[in-house]
Amino acid sequence: MYYYNAPAWKRLLLEIHKCNYSKIIVITDVNTHEYCFPVLEKKVDFNYETITISSGDASKNIDTLQYIWQQLLSVGADRKSLIINLGGGVISDIGGFAASTYKRGIDFIHIPTSLLGMIDASIGGKNGINFMHAKNQIGVINLPKMIIIDETFLHTLPSNEFDSGFAEMLKHGLIADENYWLELIDYKKSNDGNLLALIQKSVAIKNAIITEDPYEKGLRKALNFGHTLGHAIESFITYSKKQPISHGHAVALGMILATYISHKKLSLPKTIVNNTKKNILEIFKAIPFNQQEINEIIELLKYDKKNENGEVLFVLLNKIGEPVFNQRVSNTIINEAFAYYLS
Amino acid sequence: MYYYNAPAWKRLLLEIHKCNYSKIIVITDVNTHEYCFPVLEKKVDFNYETITISSGDASKNIDTLQYIWQQLLSVGADRKSLIINLGGGVISDIGGFAASTYKRGIDFIHIPTSLLGMIDASIGGKNGINFMHAKNQIGVINLPKMIIIDETFLHTLPSNEFDSGFAEMLKHGLIADENYWLELIDYKKSNDGNLLALIQKSVAIKNAIITEDPYEKGLRKALNFGHTLGHAIESFITYSKKQPISHGHAVALGMILATYISHKKLSLPKTIVNNTKKNILEIFKAIPFNQQEINEIIELLKYDKKNENGEVLFVLLNKIGEPVFNQRVSNTIINEAFAYYLS
Repeated sequence: MYYYNAPAWKRLLLEIHKCNYSKIIVITDVNTHEYCFPVLEKKVDFNYETITISSGDASKNIDTLQYIWQQLLSVGADRKSLIINLGGGVISDIGGFAASTYKRGIDFIHIPTSLLGMIDASIGGKNGINFMHAKNQIGVINLPKMIIIDETFLHTLPSNEFDSGFAEMLKHGLIADENYWLELIDYKKSNDGNLLALIQKSVAIKNAIITEDPYEKGLRKALNFGHTLGHAIESFITYSKKQPISHGHAVALGMILATYISHKKLSLPKTIVNNTKKNILEIFKAIPFNQQEINEIIELLKYDKKNENGEVLFVLLNKIGEPVFNQRVSNTIINEAFAYYLS
Repeated sequence: MYYYNAPAWKRLLLEIHKCNYSKIIVITDVNTHEYCFPVLEKKVDFNYETITISSGDASKNIDTLQYIWQQLLSVGADRKSLIINLGGGVISDIGGFAASTYKRGIDFIHIPTSLLGMIDASIGGKNGINFMHAKNQIGVINLPKMIIIDETFLHTLPSNEFDSGFAEMLKHGLIADENYWLELIDYKKSNDGNLLALIQKSVAIKNAIITEDPYEKGLRKALNFGHTLGHAIESFITYSKKQPISHGHAVALGMILATYISHKKLSLPKTIVNNTKKNILEIFKAIPFNQQEINEIIELLKYDKKNENGEVLFVLLNKIGEPVFNQRVSNTIINEAFAYYLS
C-alpha cells in the first residue's frame, strides 16, 4: 500500500490501467499545483481533471468541501471515478473526506508532497475537516487505495514545513523507538543522512500502530502524544493571535509539555525531559505565553475530540518507547508544565 | 440487529445500560417530535438531549447537517456518545450521516417511525444528504448498532406516507419473491392481514441482499429497481413543479416504467406488465407528463449516482423475483415506456 520513489510511479500506472476508472480527478492546492503538479505531469500517462483549492489549514473547512463536491459533480465524476490527492495533510484530509463521502465513497490515492503528509496525514485513513473553531471535528476513517511517496517533492518544501513533519517523526521516536529518536536528532544536527530510510521507519511505526488499532480503541491513542496541548496551542495561536504556526511546531511544544507531565505523573526521568526540551527547542522556536494565554489554551482542551465523558485524557510516557494513554492531568500540573517550558 | 415491538425496547435498554454512553442524543423532526417522541418517552429510562430539525426531504441538506454537527458540539457530545435517530428515512439518512462523520464516527441506533424507514431506509447502512439538485449524492455506508421497529409508530403515520413505504415493499416482492408480491396486493385490497409479518419479510429480503453485497458491487443494485426513473421523476416534480410527491409514489411509477422496459428488453410477459400497472395504479395516483416534461426527466437521469462511465444503467426483471442489472436502455424505449404508462 506504501510505495516509494520510482517503483511507486510504476505501481500507480499499473493500478490505474488495471482499474479502468471512468474519470480521474487530481485535487491540489495552489502551492502544490505550482510546485508538485509539474512532477506529476511528467510521471503519468493518463488523462485527468484537476480541482485546485486554497492552501493552508484554514481552507480545510465545509465551504471548501462543498466546492470539491460541486466540482466533482460538474466534471461528471461517478462511482467508478478515482480521486488523487496531490498535496500535504490538508489535501489528503479534505480530499480523502470528499472521496469517502462523494456518492457514498469512491476510490482515492494519496500522493503526499509534504513530509507531514508522507509520514503522518496520509497513513491510517483518518480524514476530515475543521468545524467551528476546533480541529478535525468532522470526518471518517477510510483507507486510500495506495500511497505514493516520492522524496522529490521535498526539494521544493519550505523548511518550516519540513520541520512540521519532522516533529511527527520525533513523536514516532518518542512513543516507539529510542534508537530512532536518537537517529532523528543526529540527522537534524548533522544535516546529513538517509532521509528516505528515516521516512520509511516513521511509516512503519505509524502503520504498525494503526493496523493493530484502526479505530483508536487503545494503542492508536499513543499517536496523540504531544497533540492534546499541541492542538490547543495551534488553535489558540491560529484563531486568537491570527499568526501562523505549523501543526508540527505546535505539537513539538506540546511534546515538551507532555514529557514534563510524564515526569511528574509517571517515571520518565528528569534528564530525559531536559534533553527532549533542549533538542526540540534547537529545531523549533519557543513561543512565550502569559498566564491569561495559558488559561485560554487550557480552556480549549475541552474541545479536543479525543475527550471522553467530558474528561481530557493525555498520552504520557513511562520511558521513551513506552506510551501510556487515558491519563488524567490536573490544571495545576499543566500550569507547572508551562512554567517549566518557559523557564 | 433488527428488533420488533416490545422485546425491541427491552433490548435497547439492555444495550444502553451495558455501553455506558457519555451522552445520548435523540434526533427527530418536528413531526416525529410531536407524534413519536411521546411513545419514546414512555419506553425509556435514560437521560437524553434532543436535536429537532424540519420535516421533509428538503431539509436533508448540508445546512441541516451543519446544524446537527453544531448542536452535537454544543451539547458536548464526544466519541463515546450515542445518537438515536427517531423518525423516517430523512432522519435516519441525515442522522446516520451526522453520526458517521461526527468526530470520525460515533455509535447510532435507528428507531424508524415510518413504514419506509422500517423496511428500507434504516436497513443497509446507506446514509447521506441531497446536494445540489440531485438526491443522496453525498453520504457514506455505515451500519447502525441496532434498529428498533415498533408498529405503534405507524398508527399516527399519514396514509400517503404509509403508501410511500408500501411501494418499497412491493419492490421487494417484484425483485425477490412473487408470493410475497401477491400477499402484499391482497393485504392492500382487503385492508386486512398481519402487517408486522409483512414488514419482517421485507426486512429479511433487504437484509439478505445487503449482507451479500454491502457495497453494491452487484446484487444490491437490484434494490434500485424502479428507482432510476423513480428518482428522476421525484427530482423533476419536487424541483421543477414545486409540488410534493412521496419517494414511494415516484418509485411506484418508476416500477411501472421498468416492468414495461423489462418486457421490451427481456422476457417479462406483457400480462405481468399490465397487472403490475393495474395493481400499482390502484394504490398510487397516475401523474400525467407531457413530452417536454418527459424529456426533462430523461435529462435528469444523468445525475443518477448509480451511473458508471456516463451510462445510465437500469435494473430490469426477467420474471418476478429475477432481477437483472446493469441494463442499458435507449431513450426511445424510455419514451415508449412513458407512452405505455400514460395509455
